[in-house]
Amino acid sequence: MPHTSRRASLRATLRDRGLDALLVTNLLNIRYLTGFTGSNAALLVSAASDEATTFCTDGRYTTQSARQVPDLERLTDRPCGEALVGRAARAGLRKVGFESAHVTVDGLDSLTAAASAGEGGVELVRAPGVVELLRLVKDDTEIEALRMACAAADRALADLVEHGGLRAGRTEREIARELESRMLDHGAQGPSFESIVAAGANSAIPHHRPTDAVVKTGDLVKLDFGALVDGYHSDMTRTLVVGPPADWQRELYELVAASQAAGRAALSPGARLADVDHASRSVIEAAGRGEHFTHGLGHGVGLQIHEAPALARAGEGTLLPGMAVTVEPGVYLAGRGGVRIEDTLVVREGAPELLTLTTKDLVVV
Amino acid sequence: MPHTSRRASLRATLRDRGLDALLVTNLLNIRYLTGFTGSNAALLVSAASDEATTFCTDGRYTTQSARQVPDLERLTDRPCGEALVGRAARAGLRKVGFESAHVTVDGLDSLTAAASAGEGGVELVRAPGVVELLRLVKDDTEIEALRMACAAADRALADLVEHGGLRAGRTEREIARELESRMLDHGAQGPSFESIVAAGANSAIPHHRPTDAVVKTGDLVKLDFGALVDGYHSDMTRTLVVGPPADWQRELYELVAASQAAGRAALSPGARLADVDHASRSVIEAAGRGEHFTHGLGHGVGLQIHEAPALARAGEGTLLPGMAVTVEPGVYLAGRGGVRIEDTLVVREGAPELLTLTTKDLVVV
Repeated sequence: MPHTSRRASLRATLRDRGLDALLVTNLLNIRYLTGFTGSNAALLVSAASDEATTFCTDGRYTTQSARQVPDLERLTDRPCGEALVGRAARAGLRKVGFESAHVTVDGLDSLTAAASAGEGGVELVRAPGVVELLRLVKDDTEIEALRMACAAADRALADLVEHGGLRAGRTEREIARELESRMLDHGAQGPSFESIVAAGANSAIPHHRPTDAVVKTGDLVKLDFGALVDGYHSDMTRTLVVGPPADWQRELYELVAASQAAGRAALSPGARLADVDHASRSVIEAAGRGEHFTHGLGHGVGLQIHEAPALARAGEGTLLPGMAVTVEPGVYLAGRGGVRIEDTLVVREGAPELLTLTTKDLVVV
Repeated sequence: MPHTSRRASLRATLRDRGLDALLVTNLLNIRYLTGFTGSNAALLVSAASDEATTFCTDGRYTTQSARQVPDLERLTDRPCGEALVGRAARAGLRKVGFESAHVTVDGLDSLTAAASAGEGGVELVRAPGVVELLRLVKDDTEIEALRMACAAADRALADLVEHGGLRAGRTEREIARELESRMLDHGAQGPSFESIVAAGANSAIPHHRPTDAVVKTGDLVKLDFGALVDGYHSDMTRTLVVGPPADWQRELYELVAASQAAGRAALSPGARLADVDHASRSVIEAAGRGEHFTHGLGHGVGLQIHEAPALARAGEGTLLPGMAVTVEPGVYLAGRGGVRIEDTLVVREGAPELLTLTTKDLVVV
């Protein structure tokens, strides 16, 4: 059971920090620790044991939480955080951490009131990022979900190209919609973010949203999209060309492909985040295009489409085995077009594991 | 310009509260006040004038914010809230409100540090729900967006039924997907929430998620769905029956329809929220089914799918002209089936304006 072992890891952390319990109120962290997918819940993780750990949701989710969280004591109440602080007080817990990066200023007032209402002496202690730290390194269940999400995106793109969905005369919006529909065919629960389909000069806009612009022969078409499977997000960018590529397009593509390969090669346990960014960026800088690579190299992916670690010039820290990240350099020539190539990968001892398997050779449609 | 007049209303509120400015960090509130749709921004609304009001976003949104927010001074920085607190200090503002229902405990620390870093004496004052209070009453631009969102949902359902998309043998998931796709055909940017398609006994689960369960002759099929247009959410539920309805299905339907009509009739300016709930609920209670109507009568809709006011037994306050709300009683008979009927309406002097126009007669497919 992945949730049991995640909670065991969290308990070890809590004991290290001298906390009796952690009140988890962020819904993604609750999903990570219990599997619950509803829209209202809180979780009081005892540093002692799962037996002393309590889950709370409201009456709408009684059936669902019994199925998803069969292994913990469940409380039905609303508001949940306050109910669990009351429970902590009655259980005689003293130091209870709360997620200060998520709890609002007004929310803390209510929790504090709940803490002081009971007979107990609960002290609420700031504990930001505790669960997020565990989420940095993905376990096998998570990586399998990411693998399925990446496969759905790979297959959708293959289908799109094979069935002529990417051709001159179609709009960006039509292509985005077909791509998203094909991801559903391959098991996605939805797109993992708003798909980017950018044709011609629009491909030079890093985060272009699909419009009614029509794809023309000679256009670069940049597709940045992903699938959502079991709450996990895939993220992939491919840039294709419609009709025979011009020399400048081929050169641009080869430059970005070389930069992306260098970035992937730099993904190894212990590598500094800033160094990974540099490995990829320096290829583009050496070609005199550094000013046209206007964003970071990549980011962590998991229960969020963007999460730690940040592969960026200012990135602090190092890679660990099991981190899932994107590598996505791009060069954008305003008014002409841009190329970005992006994979989702898992850091492993030795070479990283590539999850997005679509070819990175320049595809001409 | 709706944003200009919304900011003018906000300024009047700020002066009433003795605030020199409000730091708006909630992205929906920022969209409401400026039209900006990006994922990172903050807004410092001066109580004095739009000239002294500053918008901030990061470098990714330079082009987009120039287009969407042409009428305000724009700052490019990250983090934005901190940059604007610094700006407030330099401008000599004293009392600056912040959205304490949205700013996190850690976030307030950073804002406080920014406030004390400058030369000025900015005092950060809690100001929860200030913009939300304005958002309670929709202006014409908002109602037009809601109207379009409701029309997209109406048309999608009409198409679905007309093309035989709702028939025995199809799965809930297939129907949900077709409904969502047809909303896109009619101008939706997406579904306004995860569509509910619940067939047979599943229709007795208030918030059922579509599964591979197959629709059978004799089933009630409950469809709760909506469209997203320009950031505004429509919300509609219809319950249809596949093949000739049984007597209990027809009775159940007529009971809920009568309850829903009573709820709509109670929507008038000045009506107490709890009384509107009661007007609808008492019809179901009088039929001895009160225990099977397990949720509130309705909720506000707008930039959020669920927002104030809550039409519920414990609802406090009264209706105002221009509020947009749902009216959605339901009766759920576990193991057999349920009926819910829901409209989105605007409160008006006289009768409310109905935005979801699909028939509420029992439709047999």
